[in-house]
Amino acid sequence: MRDLCVIGLGLIGGSLVRAASAAGRQVWGATAAGSDAAAAVADGFDAGTDVRAALRRAADRDALVALAVPLTELDGVLREVRRWAPRCLLTDVTSVKAPVLAAVREIAPEARFAGGHPMAGTTESGWRAGNATLFDGVAWVVGVEEDTELAVWAEVTRLALDVGAQVVPLPAAVHDEAVARISHLPHLFAAVLASVGAQGGPLAMALAAGSYTDGTRVAGTRPELVRAMTEGNREALLPVLDEALGQLGAMRGSLASTGSLTATIAAGHDGAQKFARAREATPTGVRVSLTAPDAREGLRALGERGGRITAITDENTAIGEVS
Amino acid sequence: MRDLCVIGLGLIGGSLVRAASAAGRQVWGATAAGSDAAAAVADGFDAGTDVRAALRRAADRDALVALAVPLTELDGVLREVRRWAPRCLLTDVTSVKAPVLAAVREIAPEARFAGGHPMAGTTESGWRAGNATLFDGVAWVVGVEEDTELAVWAEVTRLALDVGAQVVPLPAAVHDEAVARISHLPHLFAAVLASVGAQGGPLAMALAAGSYTDGTRVAGTRPELVRAMTEGNREALLPVLDEALGQLGAMRGSLASTGSLTATIAAGHDGAQKFARAREATPTGVRVSLTAPDAREGLRALGERGGRITAITDENTAIGEVS
Repeated sequence: MRDLCVIGLGLIGGSLVRAASAAGRQVWGATAAGSDAAAAVADGFDAGTDVRAALRRAADRDALVALAVPLTELDGVLREVRRWAPRCLLTDVTSVKAPVLAAVREIAPEARFAGGHPMAGTTESGWRAGNATLFDGVAWVVGVEEDTELAVWAEVTRLALDVGAQVVPLPAAVHDEAVARISHLPHLFAAVLASVGAQGGPLAMALAAGSYTDGTRVAGTRPELVRAMTEGNREALLPVLDEALGQLGAMRGSLASTGSLTATIAAGHDGAQKFARAREATPTGVRVSLTAPDAREGLRALGERGGRITAITDENTAIGEVS
Repeated sequence: MRDLCVIGLGLIGGSLVRAASAAGRQVWGATAAGSDAAAAVADGFDAGTDVRAALRRAADRDALVALAVPLTELDGVLREVRRWAPRCLLTDVTSVKAPVLAAVREIAPEARFAGGHPMAGTTESGWRAGNATLFDGVAWVVGVEEDTELAVWAEVTRLALDVGAQVVPLPAAVHDEAVARISHLPHLFAAVLASVGAQGGPLAMALAAGSYTDGTRVAGTRPELVRAMTEGNREALLPVLDEALGQLGAMRGSLASTGSLTATIAAGHDGAQKFARAREATPTGVRVSLTAPDAREGLRALGERGGRITAITDENTAIGEVS
């Protein structure tokens, strides 16, 4: 297994260090956050605050470098990559993909890059919030652009599979549109619900039960993390937000005029049933040869249907499933 | 303990039959829904489909009558109450209170009424979805209007306490405004999220994780139940919906112009922290003598601060707590 260098030792980076170590990889990490580095060392991991040294070591050993820093810190780290490990195998775990792809192309264009996004997280953050099983069974998007080297994609995919995830191959733009719907919009709705709820004072807080607790849970996430992912995905998020606002406006008009919420509630129930069915569906197996001329198209088509890669064989065939 | 007659044997009514029986009350139930009645009988309870007979029996025994039918069926049942048990002790478990109060005043004005709303529920419905512990520790609003007889309020409160709930004394209008914020708006947001998410197709469903699962959970509730509570609370819901739409519109404008979501996300985080603090706060004890001239004001003030009644003493003092 290829060595792994993780830059950033928060929830995701710290969990990746633990999980990849547990899977048998040689792993080292570095972070500018001294407290996370100290906590990682105290837990027995090879970690420190010298990002440059970590990147130099990655270049020496042709390690895979995983950037697990917030989007707002990414450009600075990419400048270090360009300086100390310019042609390294590179991935990231950031929750938006098109801005990261653009930054890599601009700042570290020689890096052999395939972006990544594990769909895992908690409302907690920092090294201590992480654990080695965070990625068990989760979907991990690994980027497939027109010019992605499949050997690089396969390296990143193997890491995701090693730590227990399943890989969804997708172009950055398709990823960003989907997560705007199923992650960023939910975070913003939760924020507005929590704000409007709290305006009701102690009584509203005392009466709040399941629907409020569930609907506002992610509003407790550290604000800078929510800002980073939502503001960083502005281009994909705005149209999705407008779609939601259009539905809300139509709903408000209907309630005020006819008193009916039938259309809204029926559409929501229909959506909930589609989600439940998608979770219960029995998948069928698929195989994509990574040496075939149309391998990229095959992977993207699988990802866009919601399929996942579960293994890569020694013969360079990606094994997956789709419902 | 006073006998209890429950009309409607769905999730809430059925759970009330079970819980009040377990608490040692004489309980009988009736419902027009033959399948729920049959299921209740099969489980060993005194139940049937003859609502009139159940109400006559309540009149004979001066039982407390609890109406556990959907808001849309309430008027019809109130006409039966007027005919067969016109002066009975009466409560309900409907999720809106002002429309129920108005209906009782119009259709069954002689009933000795105090409305109720247990803040409990699941996305399931029907007798089989219920259980005797559904009300354990939940907030159960019991109506205190200007003209509410405190003896009636105390009867309904004793029932709620007997089945494990704690009682929040509130006027109907205050209840309806609060639940618009913390229950009805969350249900509508969940519906829109589920609809917008499903528009993303199989890929969006495959990537959906915690924020989406939590944010859309109640969209799976039976649509007629959500319609009944939201449409039934139109008057209180519209201003709350407009408050939310105002925040969403400002957020959209800020994202499109400056790219910042700071205000929205900070307000949401602040709301989430207020909710967490409200849950963790240590309550202080309060006592309200139900024979005092200002007893109604004392109860309402307690409820409006988010306080709860936890017992009524033999000396007619309500014991409670508030944070």
